[in-house]
Amino acid sequence: MSVENNAWKLATRPDGDIKQSDLEWVAETLPDPAEGEICVRHVYLSLDPTNRIWMSDIDQYMPPVAIGEVMRGGTLGVVEASNVNGYAVGDMVSGMGGWQKYTVGPANAWQVLPKDTGLPMTAFMGCLSFIGMTAYFGLLDICDPKPGETVVVNAAAGAVGSLVGQIAKIKDARVVGIAGSDDKCKWIKDELGFDEAINYKTENVLEMLKQYCPDGIDCVFENVGGQILDDQLTLMNNFSRIALCGLISTYNDLDAPGPKMFRNILMKRIMVKGFIVSDYMARAQEAMADLGKWMMEGKLQYRVDVRPGLENAPQVVNDLFVGANTGKLMIQISDE
Amino acid sequence: MSVENNAWKLATRPDGDIKQSDLEWVAETLPDPAEGEICVRHVYLSLDPTNRIWMSDIDQYMPPVAIGEVMRGGTLGVVEASNVNGYAVGDMVSGMGGWQKYTVGPANAWQVLPKDTGLPMTAFMGCLSFIGMTAYFGLLDICDPKPGETVVVNAAAGAVGSLVGQIAKIKDARVVGIAGSDDKCKWIKDELGFDEAINYKTENVLEMLKQYCPDGIDCVFENVGGQILDDQLTLMNNFSRIALCGLISTYNDLDAPGPKMFRNILMKRIMVKGFIVSDYMARAQEAMADLGKWMMEGKLQYRVDVRPGLENAPQVVNDLFVGANTGKLMIQISDE
Repeated sequence: MSVENNAWKLATRPDGDIKQSDLEWVAETLPDPAEGEICVRHVYLSLDPTNRIWMSDIDQYMPPVAIGEVMRGGTLGVVEASNVNGYAVGDMVSGMGGWQKYTVGPANAWQVLPKDTGLPMTAFMGCLSFIGMTAYFGLLDICDPKPGETVVVNAAAGAVGSLVGQIAKIKDARVVGIAGSDDKCKWIKDELGFDEAINYKTENVLEMLKQYCPDGIDCVFENVGGQILDDQLTLMNNFSRIALCGLISTYNDLDAPGPKMFRNILMKRIMVKGFIVSDYMARAQEAMADLGKWMMEGKLQYRVDVRPGLENAPQVVNDLFVGANTGKLMIQISDE
Repeated sequence: MSVENNAWKLATRPDGDIKQSDLEWVAETLPDPAEGEICVRHVYLSLDPTNRIWMSDIDQYMPPVAIGEVMRGGTLGVVEASNVNGYAVGDMVSGMGGWQKYTVGPANAWQVLPKDTGLPMTAFMGCLSFIGMTAYFGLLDICDPKPGETVVVNAAAGAVGSLVGQIAKIKDARVVGIAGSDDKCKWIKDELGFDEAINYKTENVLEMLKQYCPDGIDCVFENVGGQILDDQLTLMNNFSRIALCGLISTYNDLDAPGPKMFRNILMKRIMVKGFIVSDYMARAQEAMADLGKWMMEGKLQYRVDVRPGLENAPQVVNDLFVGANTGKLMIQISDE
C-alpha cells in the first residue's frame, strides 16, 4: 500500500519574506514501511516563526534545512501502516513530519499521543506540546516571576505568548501583554486575564509601558526583538530577567541592528538568557503535569488558527511575521 | 585646623569626550570635622571608565553626579583630623572622596585599611579593592569557567581585565586576551600567563579569535562592547556565559547601535548578566581572602599607572577611552 505523497522542498534560501518560489512542490511515491517503520498520514502541520530560521543558513540551534530537503515542521498525524510493535494503525502521533502529506520512516521519531483525553487533537499542537513547554520553562525557569512582580510578554496573542501571560497570572504576577490588534488586546485582557494590553500598531509602546508598569518591569518574555525590546529595556528594574525565546521582528533582516538599550543590561544588572524548548526535554513531564492540570482546571485557554491545504503553507507562514494569525497557526493537511 | 581644598565640580554634562570645560576647578575652605566626622587628605584618586557614566544623566546604577557637585571618584587617603573613635590621625582610609584634595565628613563613609601588610598603598586601589572584586565575582560568579573552557577577556591589560585573565588561569581555563597594543599583548601573554593575546588595533579580531579559540568561546568577560562584542558573540558556544562588566566603547556615544549578533544569545542559548561590584559587597570577604592569598603566592600581578596632579584629572581620564593607560589608572593628589 505505497502512498502518493506531496511535499514542499526547499529550493533556495529566502531573501527577506518567504516566497512560494523558495520552495518546490513535488509529488513522489513512498515505499511501504520497512521493519521498524511506520507510515503516518499528516493531519496538522505546525507553522512557527523558527521556520524562517531553519530556511536560512545563519548559525542556529539546529542544522539548517538543506536545499532539496523537505521543509522541516512539526506535525500531528495518524498511523496508516505499521511495521513495528507499539504503533497501531489509527494511533495519533506527534513528530517532525515536515511540510508533506505523508511520512514513511522509523517509528521512534514519533510519539504516540494519549487516547481518550477528551481534548481536541489540536491541543497537542498547543498547550500540550513544545508550545506549552516553551511558555512554561521560559517563564518559570528563566524569568521566575515572584507574586506581585510585573511581567511583560510580547507577541502576547500568539501561541506561546498567550500561555506565558496566563501562567504568569497563575503565579500571581502582574501581566502586561503587547499584541498587534485591538481584537487581540481585547482577547488577552478580557478572556485570558492579562492586567493590561498594548496594541503596538496603534499605541506608543514606551508611553503605555510607563503607564501600565508604574513599578518598572521585572520580567520580559521576549518573542519579538527590535524597538519593542528597546522600549522594555528602558523600563526594566534592577536585577530583572529576560527569557529570550524569539526575535521574530529580525528574522527577515539579518542586518537588523541590536538593541540600542543593550547598555541597560549593564546599568540595571539584567540577566538575559536565550533558550530553545529542546533544552528542557528531560523535564518535559514536569511541564506536562502542570499544564495538563491547569487546562483541566480551566485556567489555560488557547486559540488555534487552522488554515486548509498543505499547498498554501508557503503563503500562510508569512502571516506569522505580520501578526495575521490569532493563536497557534497550523495547516490542516487531511481530515482527523 | 580648617583646610584649603581644591575640587573639580561638574559644570556641564559632556557631549562625547570629556573636556576640561565640562568641569570647574574651585577653591574653598573646609570646616573642622564635627562630631562623628574626619578630615581626609586624599593621596590617590581612582580614574575609571564608569566616571563617564556618572557624568551623564542616562539611566544608570547610581544617581548621576549633579551639576555643581564635586565629581565622584574612589580615593585612598590619610586621616588628618578625627572627631570620632576608630579613626586615628595617620590611618590610611579608602572611600569615595571624589575629585578633590580633601574631604571633611562622616567617618563611616570611609574604611580604615589594614596596617603593616607589606603591600604598597596602591594595592588597595587595585587587586585588593573594588577592582579585584569586580574581576573575581564577574568571572567566578557569572562566567563560572570550568577547567579547560575558553575564556575571552577584553580590555585585557586594564586594571580589571588583567586580573580576570590571571584568575581564569588559576581556575585552569584557557584564556585569550584582547588589548590595544603589542606591548600590552606581550605583557599579558609573557608576564601574566594568558594563553593568547590579540591586538585589536592591528589584527582582525574575528579571525584571530577563530584561530585562538578552535573549540569556540565558553565565557566572555565584557568590558568594551561594540564590534569586539559582536566578534565574540559570533564564536560563542551553546550555553556559554557573558559577564557584562562594561561597555567602554559606547560611553561617549549614546546612539551606538546594540550588538548585531544579539540573535546568537538566542541561537546559542547564551546567558548574559550585567553586574556592578557593589552588588557583591556582602561577599567582599570571600573575594579578599582569595585575592590576598593569590597575591601572597605570587599568582596575581598588577600594574598601576600613576599620574601626578589632581588638576590633570579631566585630561587623564580620557586616556581610558583610547587605551593610553597600562594597568590601574590613578592620579596622585598628595604624597603618601
